[in-house]
Amino acid sequence: MNKLHDFFRTDKFATGIGIELLDVADGHATAILRTTPDHHNAAGVVQGGAIFTLADYAFAAASNSRGRLATGIHVSISYMKAVKSGVLTARAEEVRCGKTTGTYLVHVTNEAGDEIALFQGTAFRLDQEVPPQ
Amino acid sequence: MNKLHDFFRTDKFATGIGIELLDVADGHATAILRTTPDHHNAAGVVQGGAIFTLADYAFAAASNSRGRLATGIHVSISYMKAVKSGVLTARAEEVRCGKTTGTYLVHVTNEAGDEIALFQGTAFRLDQEVPPQ
Amino acid sequence: MNKLHDFFRTDKFATGIGIELLDVADGHATAILRTTPDHHNAAGVVQGGAIFTLADYAFAAASNSRGRLATGIHVSISYMKAVKSGVLTARAEEVRCGKTTGTYLVHVTNEAGDEIALFQGTAFRLDQEVPPQ
Amino acid sequence: MNKLHDFFRTDKFATGIGIELLDVADGHATAILRTTPDHHNAAGVVQGGAIFTLADYAFAAASNSRGRLATGIHVSISYMKAVKSGVLTARAEEVRCGKTTGTYLVHVTNEAGDEIALFQGTAFRLDQEVPPQ
Repeated sequence: MNKLHDFFRTDKFATGIGIELLDVADGHATAILRTTPDHHNAAGVVQGGAIFTLADYAFAAASNSRGRLATGIHVSISYMKAVKSGVLTARAEEVRCGKTTGTYLVHVTNEAGDEIALFQGTAFRLDQEVPPQ
Repeated sequence: MNKLHDFFRTDKFATGIGIELLDVADGHATAILRTTPDHHNAAGVVQGGAIFTLADYAFAAASNSRGRLATGIHVSISYMKAVKSGVLTARAEEVRCGKTTGTYLVHVTNEAGDEIALFQGTAFRLDQEVPPQ
Repeated sequence: MNKLHDFFRTDKFATGIGIELLDVADGHATAILRTTPDHHNAAGVVQGGAIFTLADYAFAAASNSRGRLATGIHVSISYMKAVKSGVLTARAEEVRCGKTTGTYLVHVTNEAGDEIALFQGTAFRLDQEVPPQ
Repeated sequence: MNKLHDFFRTDKFATGIGIELLDVADGHATAILRTTPDHHNAAGVVQGGAIFTLADYAFAAASNSRGRLATGIHVSISYMKAVKSGVLTARAEEVRCGKTTGTYLVHVTNEAGDEIALFQGTAFRLDQEVPPQ
């Protein structure tokens, strides 16, 4: 645990739907979601928005781990396999951190290691320290 | 209200976070989210995942309004303006509905009419009727 | 014709593959490509890269029409219909132009008015005048 | 060299702008572009469309390497660093190949190994053999 970790635990939306941040440091982060029927869509599988939020949370943590506040400006996600239950893991890695923008890749997998979703995010880096002092 | 509308109201995740479907028919749909502090991220603004889920829900409704089950396979979203409170509206329109895939555009706006997010989604159309009989 | 138009005509790659800028002003732009067999891919239809370059060129013109140099940082494109021949038109419109980033939408259509591709682009706005004095 | 390689060499657009396919097999592919001033945009750097076409060509080769014709339906690209000259390399890898769609990731790098662009593509798999017999 560290200050950045504590800061991200104040994300009410992500934590409210059951997402947990496992680690965050130096441009990467890992988060998990223990899915329940409350995460299902009308078709009875985990909703795309729940999977997106998991990936986006890992992306936010990773892109904010360089000491400056970063905000997502354009992201893309591919869904590869529907999921009904189990734990989903999102692993975010930094592809490049530039002066004003950063590019991150997030793989979402299930417990069997199958690729569930692939997320690519561009963050804009603001002139504010994070976590705020 | 109609059967399709009823079907989408069984989406536990979207309705659980407070999203309401206002209308859906013939390739378009409108949904709203009355934001509360529970939708905030660590930076104190509405979380990207909440905005995404709103847009994605309108996209899902619109892409399923042609009688066949459709599932999102690749979507992209641009965030244009941060939001702290108020009602967000997502309006999904069909750009093209082909035999196996469909392309949809969703504009998310706030009460002042400002563009908050732009969402572009590709759906894969399955050989199943929707709503299920 | 104006100075911005002249500036974009110095884009060797876009003009070299046959793209023409028809108009550009106030956040929007139109460009066309008269396709030939030289634009075909191995499957005998117009290559995705040629369609992308057409859309991207209209996006570049539109996003640079506000007096500041803008550069594409993240873009997404959906392909809706394959094309073998004829003239393709890309129409770029501004969704929102903020202080540091801008969001644009480009529709690519054929002569019959069919939607061929939909392109969504985020541009980063630099502190440089355009066209350069 | 093999039949698939020969098939992709008939892509007039990609080869016409100077792109070469180095290898393609089992879900991955590598292509290069030796940039020249003919690939420049109005700002004097390699045009986004040229970089996209390079990545897209590697994606097309990789996604067609499983024996069935695949066509790109939705792709996203992030640009991380502007390039003026030198050789660009695109390496496409398969993230998941499903029954009807496949997801691929392409890294574009320069000679120094810097990440220039990151490309994520979804392909639709048709019921046609490739290369055609």
